[in-house]
Amino acid sequence: MTFSALDSAITGPLFATDAMRAVFSDRAKVSAMLRTEAALARIEAKHGFVAKALAPAIDRISPDDLDLADLGRETETTGVPVIPFVKAVQARLPAKLRADFHFATTTQDIADTALVLQMSDGLDLIATDLRAILADLSRLATRYRTTPCAGRTYGQHAAPVTFGHVAAIWLAGIADVAGGLPALRQRALAVSLGGPVGTLADLGDKADKVIAGVARELGLAAPVATWHVTRGRMVETGVWIATLIGALAKMAEDVARLAATEVGEVAEPHAAGRGGSSAMPHKRNPVSATVILAAHAAAKSQVVTLLDAMAAEHQRPVGLWHAEWHALPQLFGLASGALREARSLAAGLTVDKARMAKNLDITGGMLMAGAVAAALAPSLGREAAHRLVETAASAARDSGRSFRDIVIGDSPAKARPVAEAAFDIGPAVAAASAGVSPIVAEAKTIRARLAPRKRSR
Amino acid sequence: MTFSALDSAITGPLFATDAMRAVFSDRAKVSAMLRTEAALARIEAKHGFVAKALAPAIDRISPDDLDLADLGRETETTGVPVIPFVKAVQARLPAKLRADFHFATTTQDIADTALVLQMSDGLDLIATDLRAILADLSRLATRYRTTPCAGRTYGQHAAPVTFGHVAAIWLAGIADVAGGLPALRQRALAVSLGGPVGTLADLGDKADKVIAGVARELGLAAPVATWHVTRGRMVETGVWIATLIGALAKMAEDVARLAATEVGEVAEPHAAGRGGSSAMPHKRNPVSATVILAAHAAAKSQVVTLLDAMAAEHQRPVGLWHAEWHALPQLFGLASGALREARSLAAGLTVDKARMAKNLDITGGMLMAGAVAAALAPSLGREAAHRLVETAASAARDSGRSFRDIVIGDSPAKARPVAEAAFDIGPAVAAASAGVSPIVAEAKTIRARLAPRKRSR
Amino acid sequence: MTFSALDSAITGPLFATDAMRAVFSDRAKVSAMLRTEAALARIEAKHGFVAKALAPAIDRISPDDLDLADLGRETETTGVPVIPFVKAVQARLPAKLRADFHFATTTQDIADTALVLQMSDGLDLIATDLRAILADLSRLATRYRTTPCAGRTYGQHAAPVTFGHVAAIWLAGIADVAGGLPALRQRALAVSLGGPVGTLADLGDKADKVIAGVARELGLAAPVATWHVTRGRMVETGVWIATLIGALAKMAEDVARLAATEVGEVAEPHAAGRGGSSAMPHKRNPVSATVILAAHAAAKSQVVTLLDAMAAEHQRPVGLWHAEWHALPQLFGLASGALREARSLAAGLTVDKARMAKNLDITGGMLMAGAVAAALAPSLGREAAHRLVETAASAARDSGRSFRDIVIGDSPAKARPVAEAAFDIGPAVAAASAGVSPIVAEAKTIRARLAPRKRSR
Amino acid sequence: MTFSALDSAITGPLFATDAMRAVFSDRAKVSAMLRTEAALARIEAKHGFVAKALAPAIDRISPDDLDLADLGRETETTGVPVIPFVKAVQARLPAKLRADFHFATTTQDIADTALVLQMSDGLDLIATDLRAILADLSRLATRYRTTPCAGRTYGQHAAPVTFGHVAAIWLAGIADVAGGLPALRQRALAVSLGGPVGTLADLGDKADKVIAGVARELGLAAPVATWHVTRGRMVETGVWIATLIGALAKMAEDVARLAATEVGEVAEPHAAGRGGSSAMPHKRNPVSATVILAAHAAAKSQVVTLLDAMAAEHQRPVGLWHAEWHALPQLFGLASGALREARSLAAGLTVDKARMAKNLDITGGMLMAGAVAAALAPSLGREAAHRLVETAASAARDSGRSFRDIVIGDSPAKARPVAEAAFDIGPAVAAASAGVSPIVAEAKTIRARLAPRKRSR
Repeated sequence: MTFSALDSAITGPLFATDAMRAVFSDRAKVSAMLRTEAALARIEAKHGFVAKALAPAIDRISPDDLDLADLGRETETTGVPVIPFVKAVQARLPAKLRADFHFATTTQDIADTALVLQMSDGLDLIATDLRAILADLSRLATRYRTTPCAGRTYGQHAAPVTFGHVAAIWLAGIADVAGGLPALRQRALAVSLGGPVGTLADLGDKADKVIAGVARELGLAAPVATWHVTRGRMVETGVWIATLIGALAKMAEDVARLAATEVGEVAEPHAAGRGGSSAMPHKRNPVSATVILAAHAAAKSQVVTLLDAMAAEHQRPVGLWHAEWHALPQLFGLASGALREARSLAAGLTVDKARMAKNLDITGGMLMAGAVAAALAPSLGREAAHRLVETAASAARDSGRSFRDIVIGDSPAKARPVAEAAFDIGPAVAAASAGVSPIVAEAKTIRARLAPRKRSR
Repeated sequence: MTFSALDSAITGPLFATDAMRAVFSDRAKVSAMLRTEAALARIEAKHGFVAKALAPAIDRISPDDLDLADLGRETETTGVPVIPFVKAVQARLPAKLRADFHFATTTQDIADTALVLQMSDGLDLIATDLRAILADLSRLATRYRTTPCAGRTYGQHAAPVTFGHVAAIWLAGIADVAGGLPALRQRALAVSLGGPVGTLADLGDKADKVIAGVARELGLAAPVATWHVTRGRMVETGVWIATLIGALAKMAEDVARLAATEVGEVAEPHAAGRGGSSAMPHKRNPVSATVILAAHAAAKSQVVTLLDAMAAEHQRPVGLWHAEWHALPQLFGLASGALREARSLAAGLTVDKARMAKNLDITGGMLMAGAVAAALAPSLGREAAHRLVETAASAARDSGRSFRDIVIGDSPAKARPVAEAAFDIGPAVAAASAGVSPIVAEAKTIRARLAPRKRSR
Repeated sequence: MTFSALDSAITGPLFATDAMRAVFSDRAKVSAMLRTEAALARIEAKHGFVAKALAPAIDRISPDDLDLADLGRETETTGVPVIPFVKAVQARLPAKLRADFHFATTTQDIADTALVLQMSDGLDLIATDLRAILADLSRLATRYRTTPCAGRTYGQHAAPVTFGHVAAIWLAGIADVAGGLPALRQRALAVSLGGPVGTLADLGDKADKVIAGVARELGLAAPVATWHVTRGRMVETGVWIATLIGALAKMAEDVARLAATEVGEVAEPHAAGRGGSSAMPHKRNPVSATVILAAHAAAKSQVVTLLDAMAAEHQRPVGLWHAEWHALPQLFGLASGALREARSLAAGLTVDKARMAKNLDITGGMLMAGAVAAALAPSLGREAAHRLVETAASAARDSGRSFRDIVIGDSPAKARPVAEAAFDIGPAVAAASAGVSPIVAEAKTIRARLAPRKRSR
Repeated sequence: MTFSALDSAITGPLFATDAMRAVFSDRAKVSAMLRTEAALARIEAKHGFVAKALAPAIDRISPDDLDLADLGRETETTGVPVIPFVKAVQARLPAKLRADFHFATTTQDIADTALVLQMSDGLDLIATDLRAILADLSRLATRYRTTPCAGRTYGQHAAPVTFGHVAAIWLAGIADVAGGLPALRQRALAVSLGGPVGTLADLGDKADKVIAGVARELGLAAPVATWHVTRGRMVETGVWIATLIGALAKMAEDVARLAATEVGEVAEPHAAGRGGSSAMPHKRNPVSATVILAAHAAAKSQVVTLLDAMAAEHQRPVGLWHAEWHALPQLFGLASGALREARSLAAGLTVDKARMAKNLDITGGMLMAGAVAAALAPSLGREAAHRLVETAASAARDSGRSFRDIVIGDSPAKARPVAEAAFDIGPAVAAASAGVSPIVAEAKTIRARLAPRKRSR
């Protein structure tokens, strides 16, 4: 059963976590459908639509009582899993309760709401990982806030930063997405209850009360309108996950590049056997970055399928609703693996300060060129200063001599002390370091908002 | 200059508005870059970094003073438009101010901030259109709240709704996205100011104050961290637009289908020459739906490019930042045309109540089948009632006889009054109608939040 | 294990076939890896690199001998499934053969080649379905080649066609893609064998001979260059499948629309319980179209992930190679379900000729407007003829009177016979009918090229 | 007019070429529409449908005679540009020819065929660039075929290759895509001629002859069936371009990484002002790689829009056809810039052999670890050899000592000569070098197939 690498017994453990797998298992799906029907029965009974005994009778049915293969066989015929599910549950209910089961509702209500319950559990798992990542990256950024390293633009040394600043930027990007989670939960995690065409006609003027009651029962929001065919919620959730993976990918991309043999400034946390090669015994490949970047490449595509589904025609579309099932759970799977690996990086990244210092120096001071040009501008004029530095850079590249020596040699005598002083990386380090604390503080605020909810189940 | 159909003199007017075109014109881009540099100069002068005279001198330069073709030629060489821009502006500044220009900042700061200013203006245009659409759709939904029409799932008649309910669902979908605009503005419209590697090192401990000042000056948010390489803002903006177009596409899809010759329940507002055919003089093609659905097909793809850009390496990436320029302005262009057409639909859709009534009846009452089965269940048992209705539906399809007649004929005598009553669409219409008001009320609240801002320029 | 709806016990049977599931099962993957290693061992032995006994020893290992859960656990550590696979196989080999196993090769060689073998089997299944679809659609197009029905552009009646022509266009679109399969097989199904960095250094000057031998052994092509990091093959395969699903989606989209209650010209083949509703006993929803259109919405997105993977850095990338595993097998899964449903449609579509005739007439002849205008042009002048027809169309729409009557009434007396004659749909039907045979003939040619290959296993 | 960065006066020159811009200009579009109508008139006259004088009269109309802004204004009303185009042309024709103009055809015929003519010209430009790139990369690969450099997997040194082999792999990837161009031209560049609903009814039994004649006249293929709603051709063309850009992106990605400050093995060809920075005078940023990688990020997304358009309903869809206009021309624009930059890289890449040699040595021989383990396996046993090497690698990493020294020291005395010999990179270099010639030979064959065609105009 492995069209998706996430579902494979072989590659699944690499790409997704068991905890998230449990949330999106077939059993969990059936369980969520049962919970939805039970909640509906409970509230409908309260309003006199169905027997009081129905909800407890549903509660007594375990997902394990239903034969998944049977459901699968009949789903192939009916086109939606809820129809065989309803039949299977009715068969397990006392005869006199059967007619009351699934009253006033429809396939999409149950399938949507069950999926939302699974999404809710999935978001809880994500929140837990995010809390850990925000905390660990905050520690990492703080610890190395004054550790100088090269800042690189377009792959070229540009000017000094600190490694703490680099990590703080990872943190800022992830925290920024994480900060959207509470609002996402409120907006996206809504009960879906509209009946056959979204009007809940069979409930008459009790429709609103039943929706509100079921929502309360399940810990979900009650929507203003049926959302059978307005699928912004699913897009918003999917995009949020893809964006989260994108923010993790920024970190993974940097880690992979900083871990490259020639750079060697960081290494993924070492574990026995991790990142080995079948042919090269010396290899320690960046497995965490691999998992995260593969997730990024896969996740962003799923978003298109979700956006596709927005143009759902009439009161239920031919295909576009089903298409969401191909895209949304996978995003949770991809996120689970990416987050696990990001946690590992945030908690255990190996940082080589000495190598950072060494790399900073390999251009003979060229990455202070901007500062030097700025320092020389007042005395030489901006253009002349810029030209002096550019010429010195060319000469350094061509001759292999130190850029610093050339600049100082080429500067007019009275400007030399200024030039020399400009090669001091102290101010650059101070500036980079100063940027860390506000990011860490913001991350702390956001982290607090991700505090664990009481689980919905 | 027409790689994009949005930019073509021929097709551009169909797909985008002149107002949005002005916001994303080359002139507007240069203007926004000048505003950004002027704001920076003003604040830097306040903190003693540059001459007080610089900002007013920049203010005196008009975008028309700069030769766009020159900028283009040099951009091809340098790889970014800001470098020739800086040179061109310096050439127009008094000699003694030149060295102060563009102090402490870098290419990406100016390009990003200028784009954000354009995005801000673009979002203002979108908000104006959204206000009109929300108001007009509210009127439409209210006007037809009790007009019965067929509800359709999978293209098949399912159960009655009202046309007002259909329109209210369009409204709900659009309002839901619109409701996110204020938060989007706050989160996404931030000044970008980090200097060469994101640390603003040349401003020393004044960096925070300068960022805050420039942000205030430009009416933008001051970010906690440089976002040179954390591009969630751009993704969020692009996704919001794509989702908005998706919500419009729901309406367009329904309009196109309801306007189909065999359905004929609505027609796009008629204007002379609108939707004609070069070969078929009788045609009135749904042009608004065409524009909106084409925008939907194009917009969702751009989102992938924006998500791509999140994995930007180091302190500035090779290619991923530039890729945003290929995607983001186009989304605004696509939105402008889609919104204009959606306004036209919302304000002037032709609704044929008689045709709706006629269509409701073409299945001989079959779309009351669910209600009939539910009504018969108490006396016949749910399963038997379901079977009776299913059999009658088959018979009606095969024989062409009225489903209503067959059901009533097949019902046990004492159940007949119940069956007859169940064919009354009154309750279905009432239920559909009841759903309209809460949606209209919610849209009103959201509309109020989109009230016009003072324009940033 | 159900992040993908394709892999779910519940929804999997709806969306994919068991045959394709077997091809991409974990067991099949292990089996393909064993076959690859055995073929390599056989050829390497021939050239003196490894013991002759190795290949037969590998042949004796069954996929069932390997513990998938063990492989999964270790894959999570190592980052690639081949490393634990190699260890597990070695443990089952006689001690003296272990050192020879996996000689000169690397992880990616085995994983790529095994996947290609699975793809080859998958394409065989697809070819079989395509042969059936081409044959059945040819029959359908031929049978209804002269059955008139409305041609529709932008959802509006345009001019008459025949249903056979409509089906022939479906056939043409699918045949066009199918025609590319033989070339795809030749180009894309190549052995991957490059060793650690693509140079097969351990085989010295025998590298070419070993590649050719292994390719022959496995029934695959021998590539000119290692394709570890040039992934056009995977893109081409994935795109071909997505395009195939796109061609099926054209048919599905038309079927769904023609099956709409108000149109009613076709219905999906009826099977007991097919397309039922949990709430509406009368419903016969188009399940085949639903499966195909959902596959279309999901498949096109996967293509982006595959294109992503082309920019693989150096001799093996961090993440982009793994990303293919998330996308490619799913495309086969989606195709399998879509093809099965398309076969069902092609073989058993219910066609309602009477309804087609009735629909043709609902506009009172308006869909002959183009022909009428053309017929009147010589006597009235093109512009006047166009205007007469346009005015009559407006009048017909407004008054409900027959367009035909209005046109004939409005025509100058001597032009009336011409106008009357122009309402004859005979020529339109003849033209539509004439288009069918060449398409059917072309499909026959293409079908012959898809003749079953001897299976690679 | 700059929703697309390709169309901007400022950024357009960076991202696209003037030659391609001319092919997709509004003027060229009008010109192609005129050519299409003229060819149709010529053939229709031959078969007696229209006056012989019509075609020459059309020929006399220049694109400059038509007012683009007028066309734009009316296109906004009609929804397609062909209707105002037809009116504008008729106004310029002698009165008695007007009725004959645009006979039997329809909007989509003219718009599709004109676009195909532009695509044909665009593919010619691409072929020219490809010929140059294949030639120059062949020279580059040949020149450096024996220049050793590090092979890198997952960013880590893996085993030696040669720089010629690296370049040959770029060449292989690009040649592989290029090889598909002739077949693409034949399949995709077909005339579109179907009349209002694809049956060309007004041409009666001459339809086939007219199609064949027009195709011949325009140098395009004659399709077996109308392709108004089977859009595989557009997908195939778009995907080919995206795949081509993907192959260029592989090269660009490698160049950017090899040019990174710490690696420094290559540099983009230096030109005055190229890759400068507004803030950092020493910078030489990789502009070519930036343009190519940005094109890659943008191009792959467009493919989704094209795939979307395959599910076009009925005889002309609402929106999906128009959507192609948003995607296809842009792909040509992106390709033009990416190819120009790739030509520049292929022709002028700066290669630093000394730096390659130096980098090869930075791990103290660790990238021979695979070879060493293999060499020691016969005497020590595979597992022990693997372990010895892995332990030595760890020790080298921890101590900073040379891996080579540690391995040799740790080897049993009698295995030392074998270990020492295994550090010789000669065999690795020979193997890498051997791979170059077949790739260059294949590229030569493919290049010959791209020989310039007589331009269609």
